[in-house]
Parts: sequence; structure tokens; C-alpha cells
Amino acid sequence: SQDALVEGVDFRRWWITPRRLGARALTVALSDLAGMGATPVWCSATLCASSDTGFEDVLEIQRGLCAAATAAGCAVAGGDVSAIDGPLVIDIVVGGTLVPGAVLRRDGGHAGDVVVVTGALGRAAAGLRLLLDGGELSEQEQAWVDAQLSPVARIAEGLQLVSSGVRCGGDISDGLLIELERITDMSRCGAEIWLDRLPVEPALVSDFGSAWPDLAVGGGEDFELVATLPREALAALRDSWPSTLAPLTAVGCLREGAGVVVLDREGGASVPPPRTTSRHFA
Amino acid sequence: SQDALVEGVDFRRWWITPRRLGARALTVALSDLAGMGATPVWCSATLCASSDTGFEDVLEIQRGLCAAATAAGCAVAGGDVSAIDGPLVIDIVVGGTLVPGAVLRRDGGHAGDVVVVTGALGRAAAGLRLLLDGGELSEQEQAWVDAQLSPVARIAEGLQLVSSGVRCGGDISDGLLIELERITDMSRCGAEIWLDRLPVEPALVSDFGSAWPDLAVGGGEDFELVATLPREALAALRDSWPSTLAPLTAVGCLREGAGVVVLDREGGASVPPPRTTSRHFA
Repeated sequence: SQDALVEGVDFRRWWITPRRLGARALTVALSDLAGMGATPVWCSATLCASSDTGFEDVLEIQRGLCAAATAAGCAVAGGDVSAIDGPLVIDIVVGGTLVPGAVLRRDGGHAGDVVVVTGALGRAAAGLRLLLDGGELSEQEQAWVDAQLSPVARIAEGLQLVSSGVRCGGDISDGLLIELERITDMSRCGAEIWLDRLPVEPALVSDFGSAWPDLAVGGGEDFELVATLPREALAALRDSWPSTLAPLTAVGCLREGAGVVVLDREGGASVPPPRTTSRHFA
Repeated sequence: SQDALVEGVDFRRWWITPRRLGARALTVALSDLAGMGATPVWCSATLCASSDTGFEDVLEIQRGLCAAATAAGCAVAGGDVSAIDGPLVIDIVVGGTLVPGAVLRRDGGHAGDVVVVTGALGRAAAGLRLLLDGGELSEQEQAWVDAQLSPVARIAEGLQLVSSGVRCGGDISDGLLIELERITDMSRCGAEIWLDRLPVEPALVSDFGSAWPDLAVGGGEDFELVATLPREALAALRDSWPSTLAPLTAVGCLREGAGVVVLDREGGASVPPPRTTSRHFA
């Protein structure tokens, strides 16, 4: 899997230290492997930096990347460094292994499946808003900014899903709504999301008011995983889910038809679709 | 191997069609595999393009890349597309296979080895000068510009070298002088280049006069290969060298000591070192 971070599109230089930036770039790429249920094995990185980039900053980016790679058990196999008369670009390639057939795919869903997500949603999108707004941050707000700047790739959770027999899913890099739209398109079905079931911190709801679904459903970069599985398999998945992993939450279901609707609760009324945040060719 | 082409550093947009650019980006990356004696298997590409880049141009870059990949027997495995507020960036990763141990390495040379190169040198550097100067091109000059814009990766030549037992070499992306400096540094020896033996087109000498060694020794991007081997193995290598491949020429030797000197001929006088052209962080 290959993933580029571009200054001005994916981050701004004054938001993030070079070391965190290097770690984040690798994590974003590793999340794609997590979303397949793969085990990372190697990575390679290209850094394009303008001449006003300090050499120490380049080294710090590399140190952050190497530390994140080591933590993920992923060898740094190579890369390239180039000048650029423009924004900083970090392009990462990661390679990993899969047991053939034991993979999370977007086309593996079926009407009736329950939709689960790992961890909590909306934190990174809240952090992004705070970064864009600027200003002093409370401790809670700083935690959301940290979620944006230092995400975690859910490698162990992806492996646990595939080893439990789950075959449909992906990582939520562009938000739950967009990722579910991709899954339903490829699985030729529709889906519903139940607002009252979303794993969202109470502070997110109180701080952002009625905008919180834009963050939790429309906002991306939490790099949590989404998966779908037959409803009758959910209890066994929950029972075998290690408590050391990010918790699983059922947040909706796949259904006949097409498209994704957001309901206030299971069997409830549909709400206006949350606004999505996509930073690529928006 | 990973290699990035950056607009304004590696190319200018008005020099080259998008299709040729896509092919060139892949070829540059494949040349690294050729320089190891590896067989290409897969590639992956990131394209960062500003919003003023036409969608058709993006497709053309991809078509050029895919055509070059197909020609090299290399699967296009994936990639990423990102917005950028800046120059076009194409970052390519290629993967290939090697027979363990049968690889060209920069640290495999020994004093006394003969230094050979494939093909002709200086053509791409001549083309780059012509592009930088602008103006009308003769048929000969257009051929040099084509050598710069549409280079060939010497995959078959690299495989032939390793299958013939050669174990020291690399691709000449930054010029013969710089590549030989790397080889001598890593092999802990020195080298001499014999000017009178260099495979250079007569027109290059007549058109560029005394500057021709700057192009043929100091200029890069011909993407030919350089290799070193025991002098007594040269005849057998030549005898078994298929005529369909780029021809081999002995252009110097490794020797005791350190550093690379350029002589007017074997056993002759040293000449001032040619000027090197490196476009990265120059």
C-alpha cells in the first residue's frame, strides 16, 4: 500500500513536529494494512523537501518514521530523498503478509450484516478543527489534537478480525460515511448507521453540539477500523475480543438496496447526512 | 527501490508529454533494479498534482507508466493520488526478484578489475543541455533530447551480467564519475577512467568540443550500467554477450588507493575532472 502526506493538503508544518510527522506518515500507510487484516513487514519512504528545510528536521522525520516502524515490527527497506521547490511530501510504501483468503475486503458484505467499528470516532476530526481554528487548547482539546497528529494504526485489531473469520472491512481514513459508501458500493447493498450507538466521547457531543455527527460520521483520520459480519457471529467475536485491543462497537447494519442512511437509532428516523471532510481534491 | 521525479528538479512540464513522463518515471525506478541485476515484478506509484493539472494529463501519465510497466513485465500493484499546492511529484516503488548472492553490489570491486559500461554515454546529458538552452533542434539533437526524455532501463543487461558471474556494478543515474566514486568508496579502492575508450558518439565530441567529457563522464541519466570484473573474465563475458543487448565497453580499471582519476588513455596523463551534473540538492 502506498500513501502520500503533502504539506498544505494533509498537514501544515507549524502544526506538528518533524518527528511526529514522520511517525504519522508511516501510521497512515500502516492503517491501510490494518484495514486488510495484514501484518506489516517492510516500508520504504520518499521525502521531498525544499531547500529551506533544515537537515536536522529531515533527520527528525526519519527518526519518527523509524521509531513507528520499529514499534510495528516493520523493517525500513529503503527510500529516496529529493529536492522540491514546493511543499514537503512524504510518500510511504508498506508491504505486509496475509494468510490467503483471510483478508478484509470491501466487497465481502451482505445485507443483514452488523457493522462494527473499533475505538472512538470523531476525535481526530475534532483535533483538525481545533488546529484550523487556532487558539489556546484545554486538556481535552489537546487530546483531540493529539489524536489527529499521532494516530494509531489498528494492526492487532485487523488481525483479530480476520482470525475470527470476519471478511469484510477497511480502515476509516476518510470517515465512517465514506468508507461505508465504498463497502456498500462494492458489496452491492445499502447500510444504515445508528447515531445513538456511535462510540463518541461525551465531551465531543457537549463541545461541538449538533455538529458532532459531522466529526464522528463525516470526519476521518481516526484510523479506526470498520467491519461487517453476520449478526449471529457478533457475540462470539465480542467474547473472543482481547480486552487489550481497542473496543468493538456495533453501529449499524447492511441492508438491501443501495446507499448509506443515518438514523437517530435502530428502527428510528433518518437524520440529514453529516457533512464529510475529505482533504483530497475536495 | 523507490525513486521520485519532481517537477522543476527532475523535469520541466513543458519539456515532456504526460505520457512520456509516466513512462520515464517508471524507467528511472526500474533502472535501479537493472543496476542490481534484478528482475522487475511489481510497481506502485504516487502522483501528487496541483488543481490546475488536467484530468486527461493524469490519465496520460498513468497510461505511460502502465505501458512501460507492461513492456518490462512488471505488474502495477497500486498507488496513491494526492492534491499538492506545488510541483508535480511522481514517486515510484518497484519490487523485483534476485537469485540470492547473484547481485551487482557497489562493494564487490577489487583493485585490478576492469570497468565496463553498457551502451553510449553522454547522450541524455546532451539532451538536458539542449532542453535547458531551448531553441530549434537538429535531427541529431532531437535524438539526444529523446535519450533524456525516454531512457531505457538496462534490465536484460543487468541480468546478463549477474548470470555471467559479475558481482560489482550499478546503474549510472548520476553519471559515470559519481557512480564510480560510490563503487570505489564501498569497495575500498580507487579507479581510473580512460577518456579515449569511452563509448561516445562522434557527433557529441564535434558538437560539444572540449565539454564532451562533462557530458559523458560527469553527466547522468543515460541509465546505462557500469560493472567491474577481473580482467581475465572480460573475454568470456564479451564472447557470451548477446548482440541484441546494448554493447559492452571497457572504459577503465579499479586500482589500489582511493578516488577516481580520469586519464586521456590507459597509462596516459590525468585530465582535469569533468564537471558533474547532479540535480538533487545541487
